Amino acid sequence: MSQAADTTYPTRQLCEFLANLKLADVPAAVIERTKDLFLDWIASAIAGKDAPAVRKLQEFAAAMGPSDGAAEVLVDRRRTSPYFAALINGASSHVVEQDDVHNGSVLHPAAVVFPAVVAAAQAEGKTGAEVLLASIAGYEAGIRIGEFMGRSHYRVFHTTGTVGTLAAAAAVAKLFGLDAEGINQALGSAGTQAAGLWEFLRDAADSKQLHTAKAAADGLQSAWLARAGFTGAKQILEGAQGMAAGMSSDANPACLTDGLGTRWATAETSFKFFASCRHTHPAADALKALMQREGVAADQIASVTTHVHQGAIDVLGPVVNPATIHQAKFSMGTVLGLVALHGHAGLAEFEQHALQDPAVAAFRGKVDMDLDAEINAAYPRQWIGRVTAKTTDGRTLTARVDVPKGDPDNTLSRPELEAKALQLGAFRQGASEAEMRAIIQRVWALEQAPNVNDWLPAAR
Amino acid sequence: MSQAADTTYPTRQLCEFLANLKLADVPAAVIERTKDLFLDWIASAIAGKDAPAVRKLQEFAAAMGPSDGAAEVLVDRRRTSPYFAALINGASSHVVEQDDVHNGSVLHPAAVVFPAVVAAAQAEGKTGAEVLLASIAGYEAGIRIGEFMGRSHYRVFHTTGTVGTLAAAAAVAKLFGLDAEGINQALGSAGTQAAGLWEFLRDAADSKQLHTAKAAADGLQSAWLARAGFTGAKQILEGAQGMAAGMSSDANPACLTDGLGTRWATAETSFKFFASCRHTHPAADALKALMQREGVAADQIASVTTHVHQGAIDVLGPVVNPATIHQAKFSMGTVLGLVALHGHAGLAEFEQHALQDPAVAAFRGKVDMDLDAEINAAYPRQWIGRVTAKTTDGRTLTARVDVPKGDPDNTLSRPELEAKALQLGAFRQGASEAEMRAIIQRVWALEQAPNVNDWLPAAR
Repeated sequence: MSQAADTTYPTRQLCEFLANLKLADVPAAVIERTKDLFLDWIASAIAGKDAPAVRKLQEFAAAMGPSDGAAEVLVDRRRTSPYFAALINGASSHVVEQDDVHNGSVLHPAAVVFPAVVAAAQAEGKTGAEVLLASIAGYEAGIRIGEFMGRSHYRVFHTTGTVGTLAAAAAVAKLFGLDAEGINQALGSAGTQAAGLWEFLRDAADSKQLHTAKAAADGLQSAWLARAGFTGAKQILEGAQGMAAGMSSDANPACLTDGLGTRWATAETSFKFFASCRHTHPAADALKALMQREGVAADQIASVTTHVHQGAIDVLGPVVNPATIHQAKFSMGTVLGLVALHGHAGLAEFEQHALQDPAVAAFRGKVDMDLDAEINAAYPRQWIGRVTAKTTDGRTLTARVDVPKGDPDNTLSRPELEAKALQLGAFRQGASEAEMRAIIQRVWALEQAPNVNDWLPAAR
Repeated sequence: MSQAADTTYPTRQLCEFLANLKLADVPAAVIERTKDLFLDWIASAIAGKDAPAVRKLQEFAAAMGPSDGAAEVLVDRRRTSPYFAALINGASSHVVEQDDVHNGSVLHPAAVVFPAVVAAAQAEGKTGAEVLLASIAGYEAGIRIGEFMGRSHYRVFHTTGTVGTLAAAAAVAKLFGLDAEGINQALGSAGTQAAGLWEFLRDAADSKQLHTAKAAADGLQSAWLARAGFTGAKQILEGAQGMAAGMSSDANPACLTDGLGTRWATAETSFKFFASCRHTHPAADALKALMQREGVAADQIASVTTHVHQGAIDVLGPVVNPATIHQAKFSMGTVLGLVALHGHAGLAEFEQHALQDPAVAAFRGKVDMDLDAEINAAYPRQWIGRVTAKTTDGRTLTARVDVPKGDPDNTLSRPELEAKALQLGAFRQGASEAEMRAIIQRVWALEQAPNVNDWLPAAR
């Protein structure tokens, strides 16, 4: 019955690649990009401070977990066990919607991979280089698994919750130095815990934070258990009663091994320029370009049709009249209203204008989404933005952006990343400017760091 | 967007029922049966002592959780936080495959409901009556949700892992005295964490213990978070991107409210007589009846065809040549071999003969499963056992059992339940006979118990 010796199935081939991966095999540009992603993550996690959903998970951790430990909780500067640190840092990483996204898999890798890896690394005294390698393993695995699960999966499941559990497990298993068999076991335990449904969008519920929290923590748990000898299903992804069988109708096993060792999926990951759901960004870029090119102001716009892929409709469609700032990040009309009226849809614009500004609400009513065959066919490899605006004086204007800001071919520069990190640190006074600048310098030299402990001074 | 005032959807109607449920509304026979189920559970949980999968979760809890607390871990007599007590007691409840099962939902409610309720009750000083009421709420909810998810769900998903998370959440939410809104929020957080795939069967992996462990612990977490104000999707079950949309093709929302207040699903739950997967029991009963009726011995049997429902093939089919005792519990041929050769397939027979006895292995090779249209149509309401045996002297014999031993219409008496509990306590010396007898007496008076603490003396 055991398939211990069978290395012919795709999950196992992926595990063999992960087990053999060395930092020396990874192109320097990919390592540098991973540091960019790390900075973008830690700043996002710090910005999640004081978010109500995160606070409730902190209270849960205080009730159920140890009151001290080796792992750091970024939002309250306390220490606890790695499981609870991964849980809370996972929750806080995604709440301001500024963390990274991989287009092809529609996975937010940072929010699940880094919280798990850093928590485990702090408990085990791992170096910055080991953390970078483990994180790359998590990204490479998670992105391929997300692509494998296909578009049908994402229609109902929040891939960052489901697949994120496996990404975190792969990363921590690599950090622990497990062999292919051990990584395979970790993925088995992670896959059979993989969960996360989009239904919460209708109620603006707190589930998105629970998804990233649990993916990071359960992924860490799966790797920890695998190291202890706890076994999981070998073909948890492609098996007859595995994840794809239960949660996808268009899974493609070839995705699991796509370009292993030559294609670096980590470096395909995009940074967010707007503080909203990534599905709103292509249209927001296109509307911004249209307004700049034509010199039209928001009050000259009578209506905007955004031409979108199906995934945008699935995720943004349920949000008609946002009740919270977090829900407004999933409202196409709100994001376009902020861009049109306030020039940007960043953290500050959401805080100050998303719910309070009647002009934004009015603009929201002028925006609709229309499924576009070409854009839908290009998705998820390419996230094309196209809008058609009608002006109050009767003109019909269109604009198109092929590569949204933040994608690898239109990426954020290091100065832009540093500026974004400083803004995120300042957002809830999660870190002082001096603390954030120290973090930035430490991240740029992460491959030489003797450890990844103590990003912020401990609370007293 | 919020549906706070909308009570017209089935999940909400279920939550209203649960919120309003009082012990005075529950028929006395159902309360007595719940005590039977409680005893059967606690003995099963104690019998999980020293199982390797449980031990590894104990190690995980020691590394990640607090080293003391209000909640009791039955297998090691230590105390920790309710989350980790629910985790370990959930894992140990199901490992010897002696805990209860509800036929129509194919849910094992005890393994997920009682660990969560008892852990939470110990931390909050709840009475035996409160525990009984909360447990009944968990059973009534979990069984209906399992029936709602349908047979298509069970083909790929381990319902006790997925639906079990909601059963545990409903139970703890009731224990906490949450109103319908709060129970609804708890189910939202539980449903978006619901996971568990059958793929592990192929590898005899440890996932089944992880499923019950996480269902109990995550259910408790969901209720705890709901009480703290953490929100979840309201229509997590029937919504367009909810559990049924993602994990079922034959979900029936009418099941969620079936007979609320008149049908007591708790009392429909069956006890296990054999220490194996319930899908093997009808055929084992039929073979035993056939051999007794005809006076044939095991060595006179040339072959046995078991006429089964599809669920038996889905769960037992992957197990061809069991490598572990736990996997042997999912081998139809092994179970029939034990019954034929050793008269019973209890804990002792599995330990002593399932893997070591060449005659059992030889008998296993004589057994096959054949999908039977009538039996399949009756399933899961009725678990009919029918076997056709060919004898070495050329006769073809058949036997049929309509109600397997342990079902409500063929239940275990209190003396039988007590005897089973004593065997379970003795199995790994989890409890002495005196300790087990004290537990039995305490359970029979559970509705008068001032608390549910300290079932076993604490380890020193």
